[in-house]
Amino acid sequence: MKTEIRSGHVVALCGGVGGAKLALGLYRVLDPGQLSVIVNTGDDFDHLGLRISPDLDTVLYTLGGVADPDRGWGRVEETWNFLDAFGRLGGETWFRLGDRDLATHVSRTQWLCAGGRLGEFADRASRALGIAARILPMSDDRVRTVVETAEGDLPFQHYFVRRRCEPAVKAIRFDGAAKATPAPGVLDVLSHGNVRAIVICPSNPYLSVDPILAVPGLRGALANGAPVIAVSPIVGGQAVKGPTAKIMHELGIAVNTQAIAAHYRGLIDALVIDEADAADRATTDVPIMVTRTMMRTLEDRERLARDVAAFAEQFARQPIAARKAGGAR
Amino acid sequence: MKTEIRSGHVVALCGGVGGAKLALGLYRVLDPGQLSVIVNTGDDFDHLGLRISPDLDTVLYTLGGVADPDRGWGRVEETWNFLDAFGRLGGETWFRLGDRDLATHVSRTQWLCAGGRLGEFADRASRALGIAARILPMSDDRVRTVVETAEGDLPFQHYFVRRRCEPAVKAIRFDGAAKATPAPGVLDVLSHGNVRAIVICPSNPYLSVDPILAVPGLRGALANGAPVIAVSPIVGGQAVKGPTAKIMHELGIAVNTQAIAAHYRGLIDALVIDEADAADRATTDVPIMVTRTMMRTLEDRERLARDVAAFAEQFARQPIAARKAGGAR
Repeated sequence: MKTEIRSGHVVALCGGVGGAKLALGLYRVLDPGQLSVIVNTGDDFDHLGLRISPDLDTVLYTLGGVADPDRGWGRVEETWNFLDAFGRLGGETWFRLGDRDLATHVSRTQWLCAGGRLGEFADRASRALGIAARILPMSDDRVRTVVETAEGDLPFQHYFVRRRCEPAVKAIRFDGAAKATPAPGVLDVLSHGNVRAIVICPSNPYLSVDPILAVPGLRGALANGAPVIAVSPIVGGQAVKGPTAKIMHELGIAVNTQAIAAHYRGLIDALVIDEADAADRATTDVPIMVTRTMMRTLEDRERLARDVAAFAEQFARQPIAARKAGGAR
Repeated sequence: MKTEIRSGHVVALCGGVGGAKLALGLYRVLDPGQLSVIVNTGDDFDHLGLRISPDLDTVLYTLGGVADPDRGWGRVEETWNFLDAFGRLGGETWFRLGDRDLATHVSRTQWLCAGGRLGEFADRASRALGIAARILPMSDDRVRTVVETAEGDLPFQHYFVRRRCEPAVKAIRFDGAAKATPAPGVLDVLSHGNVRAIVICPSNPYLSVDPILAVPGLRGALANGAPVIAVSPIVGGQAVKGPTAKIMHELGIAVNTQAIAAHYRGLIDALVIDEADAADRATTDVPIMVTRTMMRTLEDRERLARDVAAFAEQFARQPIAARKAGGAR
């Protein structure tokens, strides 16, 4: 799927559930075809002989309107008869594969085994779900997030789902990233002159955004054009969801706005934080926009998307050199 | 799973639905552990990246009590959400894979890809389903039934399911059979001195039983010990189900008791036919037993199983040499 990148196009970088919420907001407030989403594939893994791309699927299901609104992952109106029967046969059931969800994995595995690329599959699935946005894996190459813990190295899903993030994190690495190349389309959309904003969604910076930035060429492409706006995953000095706070703590990073700003320093033009953290504005050395970042309702998602797009406008007419000089302004 | 072959053990050879009915009857009337079933695997195929063994699964589901009683194939209380979602993604849906059924295929594929044998998987699945009979694939090796038709060669499932047996059959061959070996356990159960009967179930002789007999060593093993009793799939000059009559017609074979007797001549000690064909007794050159072979109810299955076992008794005390001399008696 070739998306025409018209004036006003927005590119979002995201991981799974949290990031996909803002991606949905952007999708709903932008004109059709005006959004591209670059998705983390470091969480991908092989399981039961299937190639599973959790974040890519969460974005596909969310934008395709088939995500489960309550569970936060997987498909709506899902059934679990495969997993039930599989468990009775002695199979592993720790990774909850729903019957409808399984169709995506079987289809993707078939596509990849036949020599197809992951990005092509994302295009096919997007079309099948009627999504008028381009959804791009960060890379077609195999990048695997490995969590180095007190109990040894764990593949991401084993750490995240099977062990429920219990082992203490010592470090996070992205196997294969150094040799990976951005998926076709990724550099195009990032560096295209018609892009008005690049949005780093409020996904976990260390587990969901860093793998994207670890793909050679991708970080540099962010500095090529449009303003880069990150939305902090911290609200009121706490992580909104998932293991972000626990991981930051275990990695010796303070759970606050300053840490997120420091993490993205030199990469972003501005950081969007929640009203609850408004006081952090004075002590943070990147431009800050304060709004409500907690996304409980669909309206929250749309409102935050509009706010982020509007904030990006403030940076759109500055010369790139000025915007990318880094440091405090 | 090692089954102790005690005195009075019965071995059944069968294909899918029709044969599995009698296998179930035998399973219910024999003492636990007294039945072994050798199943056709010529229908097996690779589909959507999965290793599918239709006949093996039909026998497993039937004896495991989870077969759908109305549809004649697949699992009871089945749902189709995988296939529905898969079709929406543009995937092939001609082979109806149910959500629960899929668990068997994913599990088997995983097992085989890890280097396991098909027979081991059948043992595992049997245990999981609580089956007190040994279910053996005819071979762990890849044997593929190919239907040579007026439209060219068709893999069995493509002929049978996708094309609904429409193309005219010119010949049937079993690719890989010549190099296949019987699965571990097959020759043991066939030639064991404690076996009181070998029963060829009323499966399609050309499509379901011939592949079994095509595995080198298997045909010979039938002549090693117990009486071999075949149940004709013909009732009243018609095939009970499936494409048997159409195929026999296309292959230039008359649809009657004599043709079935001729097909199994030299291999069987007796042929069991339906009351509707009782008149064929006089014109058939193998010993004939007449009973009701149509199996509509569970009672039908059990009664036919008892009849077949009783008939085998008549041959049990004859010297093997006398029984295997072949020809008319």
